[in-house]
Amino acid sequence: MKIDTTKTNNMLESYRTVRAFSEQLVQPLNLEDFNIQSMEDASPPKWHLAHTTWFYEKFILKAFGDDYKGFNDQFDYLFNSYYETIGPFHPRIQRGMITRPSVEEVLEYRRHVDLHMADLLASSVFEDKKEELVSVLEIGLHHEQQHQELLLTDIKHNLSQNPFLPSYREPLTKNIPAPRTTSFVPVEGGLIEIGHSGEVFCFDNETPLHKVWLEPYKLCSHLVTNKEYLAFMNDGGYKKPQYWLSDGWNTVCKYQWESPLYWFKRDEEWHVYTLGGEKMLDPQEPVCHVSYFEADAYARWAGKRLPTEQEWEHALAGQETNGNFADNGNYHPVPFGLKEAGPFYQAFGDVWEWTKSPYISYPGNKPYDGALGEYNAKFMCNQMVLRGGSCATSSSHFRLSYRNFFQPEKRWQFSGIRLAEDVKK
Amino acid sequence: MKIDTTKTNNMLESYRTVRAFSEQLVQPLNLEDFNIQSMEDASPPKWHLAHTTWFYEKFILKAFGDDYKGFNDQFDYLFNSYYETIGPFHPRIQRGMITRPSVEEVLEYRRHVDLHMADLLASSVFEDKKEELVSVLEIGLHHEQQHQELLLTDIKHNLSQNPFLPSYREPLTKNIPAPRTTSFVPVEGGLIEIGHSGEVFCFDNETPLHKVWLEPYKLCSHLVTNKEYLAFMNDGGYKKPQYWLSDGWNTVCKYQWESPLYWFKRDEEWHVYTLGGEKMLDPQEPVCHVSYFEADAYARWAGKRLPTEQEWEHALAGQETNGNFADNGNYHPVPFGLKEAGPFYQAFGDVWEWTKSPYISYPGNKPYDGALGEYNAKFMCNQMVLRGGSCATSSSHFRLSYRNFFQPEKRWQFSGIRLAEDVKK
Amino acid sequence: MKIDTTKTNNMLESYRTVRAFSEQLVQPLNLEDFNIQSMEDASPPKWHLAHTTWFYEKFILKAFGDDYKGFNDQFDYLFNSYYETIGPFHPRIQRGMITRPSVEEVLEYRRHVDLHMADLLASSVFEDKKEELVSVLEIGLHHEQQHQELLLTDIKHNLSQNPFLPSYREPLTKNIPAPRTTSFVPVEGGLIEIGHSGEVFCFDNETPLHKVWLEPYKLCSHLVTNKEYLAFMNDGGYKKPQYWLSDGWNTVCKYQWESPLYWFKRDEEWHVYTLGGEKMLDPQEPVCHVSYFEADAYARWAGKRLPTEQEWEHALAGQETNGNFADNGNYHPVPFGLKEAGPFYQAFGDVWEWTKSPYISYPGNKPYDGALGEYNAKFMCNQMVLRGGSCATSSSHFRLSYRNFFQPEKRWQFSGIRLAEDVKK
Amino acid sequence: MKIDTTKTNNMLESYRTVRAFSEQLVQPLNLEDFNIQSMEDASPPKWHLAHTTWFYEKFILKAFGDDYKGFNDQFDYLFNSYYETIGPFHPRIQRGMITRPSVEEVLEYRRHVDLHMADLLASSVFEDKKEELVSVLEIGLHHEQQHQELLLTDIKHNLSQNPFLPSYREPLTKNIPAPRTTSFVPVEGGLIEIGHSGEVFCFDNETPLHKVWLEPYKLCSHLVTNKEYLAFMNDGGYKKPQYWLSDGWNTVCKYQWESPLYWFKRDEEWHVYTLGGEKMLDPQEPVCHVSYFEADAYARWAGKRLPTEQEWEHALAGQETNGNFADNGNYHPVPFGLKEAGPFYQAFGDVWEWTKSPYISYPGNKPYDGALGEYNAKFMCNQMVLRGGSCATSSSHFRLSYRNFFQPEKRWQFSGIRLAEDVKK
Repeated sequence: MKIDTTKTNNMLESYRTVRAFSEQLVQPLNLEDFNIQSMEDASPPKWHLAHTTWFYEKFILKAFGDDYKGFNDQFDYLFNSYYETIGPFHPRIQRGMITRPSVEEVLEYRRHVDLHMADLLASSVFEDKKEELVSVLEIGLHHEQQHQELLLTDIKHNLSQNPFLPSYREPLTKNIPAPRTTSFVPVEGGLIEIGHSGEVFCFDNETPLHKVWLEPYKLCSHLVTNKEYLAFMNDGGYKKPQYWLSDGWNTVCKYQWESPLYWFKRDEEWHVYTLGGEKMLDPQEPVCHVSYFEADAYARWAGKRLPTEQEWEHALAGQETNGNFADNGNYHPVPFGLKEAGPFYQAFGDVWEWTKSPYISYPGNKPYDGALGEYNAKFMCNQMVLRGGSCATSSSHFRLSYRNFFQPEKRWQFSGIRLAEDVKK
Repeated sequence: MKIDTTKTNNMLESYRTVRAFSEQLVQPLNLEDFNIQSMEDASPPKWHLAHTTWFYEKFILKAFGDDYKGFNDQFDYLFNSYYETIGPFHPRIQRGMITRPSVEEVLEYRRHVDLHMADLLASSVFEDKKEELVSVLEIGLHHEQQHQELLLTDIKHNLSQNPFLPSYREPLTKNIPAPRTTSFVPVEGGLIEIGHSGEVFCFDNETPLHKVWLEPYKLCSHLVTNKEYLAFMNDGGYKKPQYWLSDGWNTVCKYQWESPLYWFKRDEEWHVYTLGGEKMLDPQEPVCHVSYFEADAYARWAGKRLPTEQEWEHALAGQETNGNFADNGNYHPVPFGLKEAGPFYQAFGDVWEWTKSPYISYPGNKPYDGALGEYNAKFMCNQMVLRGGSCATSSSHFRLSYRNFFQPEKRWQFSGIRLAEDVKK
Repeated sequence: MKIDTTKTNNMLESYRTVRAFSEQLVQPLNLEDFNIQSMEDASPPKWHLAHTTWFYEKFILKAFGDDYKGFNDQFDYLFNSYYETIGPFHPRIQRGMITRPSVEEVLEYRRHVDLHMADLLASSVFEDKKEELVSVLEIGLHHEQQHQELLLTDIKHNLSQNPFLPSYREPLTKNIPAPRTTSFVPVEGGLIEIGHSGEVFCFDNETPLHKVWLEPYKLCSHLVTNKEYLAFMNDGGYKKPQYWLSDGWNTVCKYQWESPLYWFKRDEEWHVYTLGGEKMLDPQEPVCHVSYFEADAYARWAGKRLPTEQEWEHALAGQETNGNFADNGNYHPVPFGLKEAGPFYQAFGDVWEWTKSPYISYPGNKPYDGALGEYNAKFMCNQMVLRGGSCATSSSHFRLSYRNFFQPEKRWQFSGIRLAEDVKK
Repeated sequence: MKIDTTKTNNMLESYRTVRAFSEQLVQPLNLEDFNIQSMEDASPPKWHLAHTTWFYEKFILKAFGDDYKGFNDQFDYLFNSYYETIGPFHPRIQRGMITRPSVEEVLEYRRHVDLHMADLLASSVFEDKKEELVSVLEIGLHHEQQHQELLLTDIKHNLSQNPFLPSYREPLTKNIPAPRTTSFVPVEGGLIEIGHSGEVFCFDNETPLHKVWLEPYKLCSHLVTNKEYLAFMNDGGYKKPQYWLSDGWNTVCKYQWESPLYWFKRDEEWHVYTLGGEKMLDPQEPVCHVSYFEADAYARWAGKRLPTEQEWEHALAGQETNGNFADNGNYHPVPFGLKEAGPFYQAFGDVWEWTKSPYISYPGNKPYDGALGEYNAKFMCNQMVLRGGSCATSSSHFRLSYRNFFQPEKRWQFSGIRLAEDVKK
């Protein structure tokens, strides 16, 4: 699947491809699974299916379609996520309480909107307002792709609440690449450029292209593995405050963290819960489901540090962006890097990599106009940037300049660690 | 439906009748409705269906059946409610997170247990241990009937979380009895007897029959109506601390109560949410969904008091126990009392009546042996006794000595008010 | 000290005696100790000194004194405790935040009110309204005595927050009475009378005298000792839910209780914090600082039960009410009972004894008129009755019919256990 | 007062000057005021006095003094603030519960440590380890100066809890400078240098001097005034989510913010609480006691933005660092800027200015060695940088590169707003 949005005659095809993948992702679910919200951060799968549909209805069909009638007037209230300037919306924490509309009605809603979207894209309206409409539609498609990643992480969290740990997909047949040696790769600094440019779609927070001064640095060729992370744990990593940020240590104590999320011990052996069910911990896999606090503490313990997002983007600028993305259907990181790359393995896909950069706007940045201005800009506080995509990200959704962001204590995303270090002068 | 458990040859028939009613009650639900837990007090309908089934499996099939194999070993953990002496159980607050087993599996579980129960009741084991087995089975049947009432109150609460207030049943066709005059009926006191005796089933907390001294008192012939309660509200009842117990006033302030549960104003008019959807407030209906705190404050405002449970039981001792029970399918209280009674109307069914009696054990009371001892006795603290059954109680489940109990701030049950007063000497 | 309020010519003397004792109790404090509120239940000593003074000012000087001017208009807001019908008051939880007025000003306030009280009691107003005025003054004196007990329990809790456990008084020189044998004393039941009658002062909640039917029972001659309670602990008492009320077990888990309040282990030995500082646990002392939940669990473990308040009052009706009261200056319970009594030792003073009776009004009870009606009546919910006074109660404050009440989870009062049991028929 | 720490023969004089100022600041307090902790962020004045003393004892006397004996072994536990690597410490939230040691003992502790510090600075040890010792002593002095600012902000918060708003100092006689015109001053960008260099003391987080690329920008000549902020409020600023960061809007809703801290309305007029008591809002004063969320929302409403900390430092690099500091004894910001400056008024002193820069380490930064490494580095998460000092900062404590930091919701510091904007290209 590739969203080729530069050729506008393919917009409908891109639309259909994206829409179909959402529905493919919920195939393994029982009907009961659709309605569950296991924590405030997560949303029920039904809600994701409806909200992504509402996005097209609200920002395209109602905005561009002359005589489009809403499928159901209540949905503006139920399926607006957080757009305060549009109107009141259902409290996030209550999303799991909405049993009506049923899953069937939501799927009907999707068909209804899909039909009208197809009509609109074939109409003269599309030709008249092509630039504006394509621009919003691209946001809508990438928006749905973001929710596809959340579908996977939320389903994983939801199912993990069941003490008997049901599987979402079949267990994978092992096919592990050959081991590769880890090294810290030196990168030249200087006055470089960061941010998005060119024709390909990006979000508003990736612009403008701007100058940044970087000192020389080194970036690790590989992700931190479970084996390496276990050494930190076995050295008392979760018991020694000296490795932790103050907020991080408070979080460790508050939640009594002793390992990454989804790790548990059985018969003295570490196991992990995956979307394929539980399995023994694989020491070669990249460590996953760690918070920023854990990534930062690990780096301090290891005598290294996390890279800034600018260091990350600059170092990876020359590499092809392929890797273990959601397209593979693994929904789990794999060891060593899927294929020969260089000099940085596992940089794209597998796990989102925590950077030491707080999520703030680039110099001179302008958010989207109107309600879409709430899409990214209002979250620029108390969150950290992650880079590189994960095994739950669609490859067609990804680009080098992509900035993901989460609060430093979150760990239900597929998030991991790549180390950096200063060059001694 | 009548559970005639005195004739043991009817045990199977009684069992089937009770079991069928549970499944009838969930007929109006969407599959998505089965899994929802809208607050800690409520449980998902699926859980009620499974837990009531587990009760027979645990206390009868596994205890009496020689070679019965459990349907699923995980169910002991998932569907034990609160029996600490049996083993660990799933946290109550997490009941809505369990999407597996599916509704279909739970219904299969019911069929499995029903089959084995029928076998057991037809076997020689039944004849050999009839007394003991009937005794536990009666508890199991009344246990399921209690959960049928909770099914209704929990479904009502669950659906009420939906901002668009779906209906559970068709609206009722009005058929209101003729108005009757309210009066305070004098009752002789003296050294009387309270509690259960005789052949009919009762719970352990209704025994033993014991002597109590009562001063003369008066008990109101009718329940407090919405109209009367509105007068309290319009007189600033929810704004004046002098009418409230200290804990009650704190509760009013904490939750910003301004009316009973399920009341809301639209266009300046009071409406209520019922299992038949929303409707205008009917001034003649008994006020419902009030807490003990509200019942007590209303009584103080009215210059009266609530009766003790002993006063209630003694006054009603001579009347037939018929009324607006769940059998009618209203699931909502009705005005005036369904049919001629006397001198107390609406005493049985309609709404549970808060008494001023804290829920404690009767003198000389002995709880059930073993794990079933946890059924009632461990809740004898910080709860108040309610009497008389409600529109969600099955008539075959009810008897004069029945003691219901809830914390004084709870109001999602069908609970209302009957006033009493002292006789001036 | 004895409040002889039957001879009205002694009112001023009684007033001065009570007032002086409050000031005596704060002598051992540092100035910094006066302002501390270590938990919501406790109040700063300064606040107790001011509030008890405000009580006379509000209910006597302002009500009866023709031209009395308030000492400071702000004090109505600061030192009203909970009388909603009087006007707004400072939030309880904020009492420790009030550094002004200073302790010195509060002591000046006391002198000011004392002066005017002496004037009033010597004036013609006193003669004209003697009955009414004496009645309120008696409440005021007993009110201050209640706060003297709270001064001691709150100071104990406050100082216990200091990790180095300062002493409030000198350690006691041991003078332990001779051991006495414990037995369960049979008591006849029947139609008996409970409640206060006669000339001596009592609170409104102790009236009226009323008939109660009691079955025969046995009451233990002594309080449960630390040694006996340790046996419960060593048998896993705090680990076994079967001994506990449901709310009790939740409380144990929530606060991770493993022993009574003020117990701690050092070098594998149990110690306790007392107002004389820390000391090794004395196995012969009555167990103290236990909640109702712990008292009830202990009784169940011991195969006994707690008495009702009626059983307690009836059994003790014939004994002299002397014991280890605050007058002794121990502020700590002592073993065996101070002197020969019979058949019940340690019944008065030492520790308040939890009964299994929820705190509700007696039949036909009338609360005080006006704002004083809030004194006792509005707390009649979710609290349990304690009987017998404690080592922090003044003997002149105590009488047989005295009903103390606290929530079942509280344990910072000097509260202990006396067991009862049914007579097998 | 000027800490001239470059001339080491003045170290003792600097020490005495700093120490004396702490004791001067608590002169206006009642003894009762010393022990109060009005919120978790604030500490009791007594604690500040002791903790700053402990710092010298722990890091100097015990580290360098051969045979120094601690004043009291318990103080390591009581007065360690947050140095996890040193040992366990008293929970922050419990600081107000420690009535012992008394204020008198703490003052004695100060005298004891002062005496030994004077001895040490006159000894041969000082000459032998001068560089190392001076380095730690400078940190100790600046540490105490930081706590002097907290003394003022904490005392202000503590006293504000009293409903009758006591004063800490005499009201000021008005002496307002002449009005000056506000303008946005253009600043060249380019590859500039940020951070500390040279002989003067700075904290570890101000180093190293490093290159940063800045686009051209404009910075406002003055702080935002109360009058300007009122326009935002009157335009519904606190009611319109579009101006707020998502976390900011949640904070506004959670705490129901409607104005800056310490503002309140009386008789329809805005008043503010100051350390000189309450007064009418002065429209010309800089707005103060706003959070980052409010500063950011105001900027968005005004069509501007906050500066980055690099923009701030670069723009102010040429100006003299004088202003309305704590030395003036105002402890309150003043309008217009105390004296002629240019082009930026009120930049130093008055109020800390929120920048849009999250608090993170500079490239290549190294924290202090050992336990002092916890001083700054472990707080580099979820905090925003403030620049410029305030009316509660000592001028000798301040330097251009100073980085203050607080969580974006805090507002009990003297914090205000200076706007910036992009230069349109």
